[in-house]
Order: sequence, then structure tokens, then C-alpha cells
Amino acid sequence: MSDADEFRRVATAAKEAAAELAPLPRAPKDAALRAIADALVARSAEIVEANALDVAKAREDGTAETMIDRLRLDAGRVEAIAQAVREVADLPDPVGEVVRGGTLPNGLELRQLRVPIGVVGMIYEGRPNVTVDAAALCLKSGNATLLRGSSSAYHSNVTLVAVMRDALAGTRVPAEAVQLVPGRSRESVKHLMRARGLVDVLIPRGGASLINAVVEESSVPVIETGVGNCHVYVDADADLTLALSILLNAKVQRPSVCNAAETLLVHERVAAEFLPRALAALAEEGVTVHGDARVAEFGDVVPATEDDFYTEYVSLDIAAAVVGSLEEAVAHIRKYGSGHTDAIVTRSQPAARRFVSLVDSAAVAVNASTRFTDGGEFGFGAEIGISTQKLHARGPMGLPELTSTKWVYTGEGHLRTATGTVIAASGE
Amino acid sequence: MSDADEFRRVATAAKEAAAELAPLPRAPKDAALRAIADALVARSAEIVEANALDVAKAREDGTAETMIDRLRLDAGRVEAIAQAVREVADLPDPVGEVVRGGTLPNGLELRQLRVPIGVVGMIYEGRPNVTVDAAALCLKSGNATLLRGSSSAYHSNVTLVAVMRDALAGTRVPAEAVQLVPGRSRESVKHLMRARGLVDVLIPRGGASLINAVVEESSVPVIETGVGNCHVYVDADADLTLALSILLNAKVQRPSVCNAAETLLVHERVAAEFLPRALAALAEEGVTVHGDARVAEFGDVVPATEDDFYTEYVSLDIAAAVVGSLEEAVAHIRKYGSGHTDAIVTRSQPAARRFVSLVDSAAVAVNASTRFTDGGEFGFGAEIGISTQKLHARGPMGLPELTSTKWVYTGEGHLRTATGTVIAASGE
Repeated sequence: MSDADEFRRVATAAKEAAAELAPLPRAPKDAALRAIADALVARSAEIVEANALDVAKAREDGTAETMIDRLRLDAGRVEAIAQAVREVADLPDPVGEVVRGGTLPNGLELRQLRVPIGVVGMIYEGRPNVTVDAAALCLKSGNATLLRGSSSAYHSNVTLVAVMRDALAGTRVPAEAVQLVPGRSRESVKHLMRARGLVDVLIPRGGASLINAVVEESSVPVIETGVGNCHVYVDADADLTLALSILLNAKVQRPSVCNAAETLLVHERVAAEFLPRALAALAEEGVTVHGDARVAEFGDVVPATEDDFYTEYVSLDIAAAVVGSLEEAVAHIRKYGSGHTDAIVTRSQPAARRFVSLVDSAAVAVNASTRFTDGGEFGFGAEIGISTQKLHARGPMGLPELTSTKWVYTGEGHLRTATGTVIAASGE
Repeated sequence: MSDADEFRRVATAAKEAAAELAPLPRAPKDAALRAIADALVARSAEIVEANALDVAKAREDGTAETMIDRLRLDAGRVEAIAQAVREVADLPDPVGEVVRGGTLPNGLELRQLRVPIGVVGMIYEGRPNVTVDAAALCLKSGNATLLRGSSSAYHSNVTLVAVMRDALAGTRVPAEAVQLVPGRSRESVKHLMRARGLVDVLIPRGGASLINAVVEESSVPVIETGVGNCHVYVDADADLTLALSILLNAKVQRPSVCNAAETLLVHERVAAEFLPRALAALAEEGVTVHGDARVAEFGDVVPATEDDFYTEYVSLDIAAAVVGSLEEAVAHIRKYGSGHTDAIVTRSQPAARRFVSLVDSAAVAVNASTRFTDGGEFGFGAEIGISTQKLHARGPMGLPELTSTKWVYTGEGHLRTATGTVIAASGE
């Protein structure tokens, strides 16, 4: 069987499984999730063994030790993955929720209900825990998943998916609802991107180049996630002590994540007071500042290039610029930002209101660290990614963001005429 | 200036206008809409004159008289278009609505607000009234529009857009918020489809081939609209008198629209009683029935091909089949349907519940005509199209469907740490 045929077979099976899974109520879905969690723990040794193959290959390839650490599974990490699945089981089921509803003037009862999307394709890099997280969130929201993880985690993913599917065999959720995209080649990603009619949405998670490639080539609708060039803007009316704490937290607390700050903007009226303190504190935390000429007046910085302001460093680096006004800060964010999270530090209510209104990003923080843009922090229980696009979902995506809706209207023989509704005569 | 450069100039101006328009409150937007309505009426003669060029060209090209009627504008029709704009002004403004919100356990105030999408690209066929309707709905929801109508309505559209832009010149809404895509060639549609970063969403309205071409080629996110292969399923437990009324209304009341019925499915237990009556009544209304072999047992029909069941006739034709069960009806709808609207006629509550749960379409009607799937009927006031896809919006799209959301969180120095939230000390 050719790769393309094999992909079609798998995707068709996923579509059929999705149709079976969609109408299931909460209880059998939660039972299936608990069966998965139990199986992961019971077969932990097997998972760790498969993972060791990926780790050995990564070492052979000279992969950096920090990346290897992201890849590695041990019994404790497998237990944590299983625990996350149990937490998904405990979350409310979004399916069937009445989003809007009422009785129309003509007596038709109209309801808009949450329903599963269908088949969700996940394309992701890095950690093998995403394989299980994504499958669990999709299953809970009534969706089948087609998983295409990093080839560096291939053996781990094959085993994790096998364990999940074996666990499903004893439940009311069809095993075909969780599937790995066959093959490890780049071609297999292409099959997924061209599978319109079989796959309802693609969610790429990874670096900007992966996400851009998927958006450019996919005929399946895509939800872009995760690129975060987040800004902290210190306004003329900022409490500078607070601003410094927020800046440091946003940059340093976990520099490798998408909601970490990548650019500092300082209003010129407070630059002389704020920047010397900020540059010293950042240096103390080991942060390299890529500053424009006006920032350089206040301390040692690496001269910033135009590119620096576009960059998501995901490291202990930050770009920095002085701006003449709040409007200039907003223009900078609009030009260079990625539409993830941008923060203002200010005591001025009008300035906060104006910043919130003008910044066109998934999240805007006022006197708070950018690090709070997160499904867990927002109380979603879990997230499948952070959308930086404007359609369907924007910001952290929890279970409701993995659903579509369906309109249902119920009448008693309602007919539409040019002059209004008529109720048909019954034959009784 | 090349076509591509000219397109870029126009789209960039639209993007800048969108940023200016987005934060405007309701009053200046409504004032702009009323200015547009007044200008359309005041310059009606000019509009009708431009339209006459399109009508003359269509005649020269041998266009069918029904199509010419769709194209033609007169003073009365221009007045109706202006009245529709006034009605949009009267609708509530979706922008700024708090979709979700509350205070998190750590004290962060979190709100999810409706915000405009940005720049909406419209690609549409036929009636020039869409030019004004689309621009008005986008303006009200704070979006700029790039309009690409049918080349058969070129002169009408050029004049309508000129009138709208002139009217905006005296308002707080920038004229660049309403723009025609330059050029009449197919190339100009391609520019629109490749304008990722400048255009936020494309809404194609027209036949299946237009919509498929846009979905396949666009790197800008697309909302598919309007293809309606709607089914009426007459269940074993149907009130057959009611079923006949609903069938006739769904097929005959306005056959040219997307929510008209295109396929009749009849449960075998009622086929012998229902079909002879239905075939006679349909014949009396001038409807040609394309029936399968089992339907043909009960009257004269054109033999149905496989293709008939996939077809959106938009004419006085209907495909018809006998099914062995509700499940078989659902399987037929899943295979051949377009996911628009499907109706069940039944007295059985369990059958209705099962049909609603299993049919995966934008709308499911119970004991009501499919013709009610409509923004106006649903109480939206106006609609920009009917989405048959699952992401972002499904079913009739009103003003809220032309918005995205933005998360705003406000703290007092909220920092995220590994163990929970810490409030930074203030410098005061």
C-alpha cells in the first residue's frame, strides 16, 4: 500500500470513529480516559524503553542536552502524563452545552449546541507528552485525533499511541479515534495538510517555520498557535518598582515559553529613571539586552537590529527600545509583535484603557506579567495550545475551543412564506 | 503600478483603516452607516445609470433573463439597499461585548471581549446589493472590507463603492475601510487569496466551484458559505400530512436559495402511503423528481444517478430515495450532504433526538421547513452568509460572527511563580 493510500485508510477510519464518538455522553468518554491513564501507568516500563531508543538516537545526532531532557521519559514523567489525563476526565464536557437558545416569535424553538469538530490533526514538535495530552483533550471533546509528532520522538509516540489504543479497546470509544499519522517522512505531513474532507482542522504546535509552512500549504483549516513575541510597555505613569518586577518575571521566570517577554518598551519620560535600574537587574539575571540607541544611553547593551524586534528569543535575551508615547508603543507592537500577549504597566486608567483598546493581540495584560496567558491560569483546566490567529479561537484553547456548534430548531409544521410563518395542518 | 503593487497599496490602506475603525464606539459607526444610506438614495440615478452598463453588457453576452433580473437596479431597489443599511445601523454593536469574564482565584480580573477581526475580504457573485450589505455589516462590526464582486456587476460595484466612500469622507470612519479590489481579472482574486498578513479572513459567496477554488488556493483563512444540499427525511413515525407540507415548502417556496430542499428521504415503512401523494403534489408544483428504484415503484420519476444525490439543484428538481431506517437516512446525509440544513419529520421524540444527535450539519430542523435557516429568521437582523464549515462560525453569520475576541487581564503587580501568584511590591 502506498503512503498516500495508507494515510487515506487511517484518516477514513478516524473520520468514522469521530462519527461514533461524537454522540457519546460524558460517562463513557471519562471511563475511556481513565482506562488510558491506568494503561499508561501499567505499561510505563515499555514506554520508557521505547523512549530510550529516541534518546539514544538524539545523543548520536549530537542533540543539545536541554532538548534531550525535553524528550526523556521516566516512570515519574509517565505518571505525570497519566495524571494529566485523569484531570481531563474531571473537567466538564463541553459537548451539548447550549450556547444560545430561545423561542422565536413564530414559536420555533431554536438552540445553538456545542458539538465536536470531528477529526483534529495535530502537528507538533518536541515533548512526547503532547501526544497524550492532545489525544485526551480531543477525546474528551468528542473528536478523533490524527497525531503527527516529531520524528525525534517517533518510538515514544508509537508506543504511547499503541498503549492508548489498546486501552480504548475495552471501552465504548473506538480505538480508531486515536491514531498516529503513518510514516516519518515530510510527505506524511503533506498528506495531512491536503486531507480536506477527512480532517476538519489542523493545529500545528512548534516554531514559526513549522506553523508558516502549514498555513501556506494546508487546504484543511488551520489554527495557528504559540509564536509569542510578547512586549512589556512601561508607561510614563508606571509604578517603576512594579514595572521592574513584572519585566523580570515576564522575561526570566521561564524564558523558554511562548508567553515570556521578548521586548521591553519604555516611555521616554521615565527612561532615565527606569532603564539604569532595569539594565542592571536584567544583567544580574543573566539577560542580554539588545537595545536601540536611546536604551544604550543608560547602560551596556548589544545594539539592536531591526530583526531583534521581530525575534522570539525563547532565551535569556530581550530587545529594548525607548518610545515617545503610548501610541508609538502600540505602533511598535502592531509592527513587530506576533499578537500573543502584550503588557502595559501604568497607574493611569486612561492609558490602560487606551492600550487595551489599541493593541490587537490575543491577550493584553495590565499591571501583570505576560506569563499569565495560559489555559491553566485562566481556569480552563488544560489547554491544547495558544491561538495567535483571530478566527475560531484566540488565546489559550481549552475544551470549548475544540468544539463547533450546531443549530437545532423544532417546530410543529412550521412553513416559511413570503409574508411570515404558517403552521401546516396536521393529518391527525 | 503593477496589479500586484496596486492590490498591496489598497490592502495596506484597508489594514490601516481597520486599525482606526476598530476602537470606534457605536455612535460614529452608526452615523457613518446612515450617511451611506442617505448618499445611496441621493445618488440613486447615478447608480442606476452605471448598472445599466452592466445590464446592457449582460444582454449583449446573451445572459439569461432571470440572471439579468438579479443584476438590475432601479430606484426602488436602491432604496431597499439603503433601508437595509439603516437596519444594520439599528442593530446592537457586537464590539466590546464581554463574552466571558470574572475574577480569578489570584485576584486577576479576566475578561474576554469581542473585537473586530480586521480586514474582511469578500468574493461574491451576482447581485450588486451584496456590495453594500457586506460593507455595512463589516463596518458595523468594526472591520474594513475588500470587495471583489462579479465582473458582470463591475460598473454597479464601482459606483456603489464610490458613493459609500464619498459618504464616509464626512464621518469618523475612514473611507479606506471600504474598498474595491482593483482590476477585473482572475489575477485580482489571487492577490486577495495570497494576502496573508494584510487580510484576516476571506468569505466567498457563490457556487461550489468558486468556494472550492478559494479554499484550495487561499493562504488567508476562509469561511465557506452557502452550498446547500438540504434533505427532508420523512420518518416511519411522521405525520404524513405535515411531512408533505414541509417537503413542498422546503422545495418550492423559493427553489433558488441555499436552504431549499434538494433531496427527499422516505422511511420504507411509510413509502407506500407517502410517496404516491408526494409525487403527485410535487408534479403539480412543476417539480421533477430524480428517484431511486424504490421511489420509482410509486410513480413516474427520472431515474436518479449517484450524482443527483450530490447535487444542489437550485431549481424545481429534487432527488429522492427510500431508506430502511433512520440510521440509513443519516448515513445518506453524511455521505451526500453539504452540511447545511437537514430536516426530520416525525412524531417520535426518540427519533428526533437521535436524528439531531447524529446529523452533522450546521442546522437540523425537526418538524419544520429547512427554509428557516436564515439570519433574519433566527433574529440576527442581517446575515453576511451561511457558513457550512465547522470552524469560527457555523450556520447563519450575523454581526457577532464578524468578530474575534481578545483576553484582557488586569492585576496590581501579579507575577507568576512555580508555586503560585505573587503580588509585586509597589514603589509608592
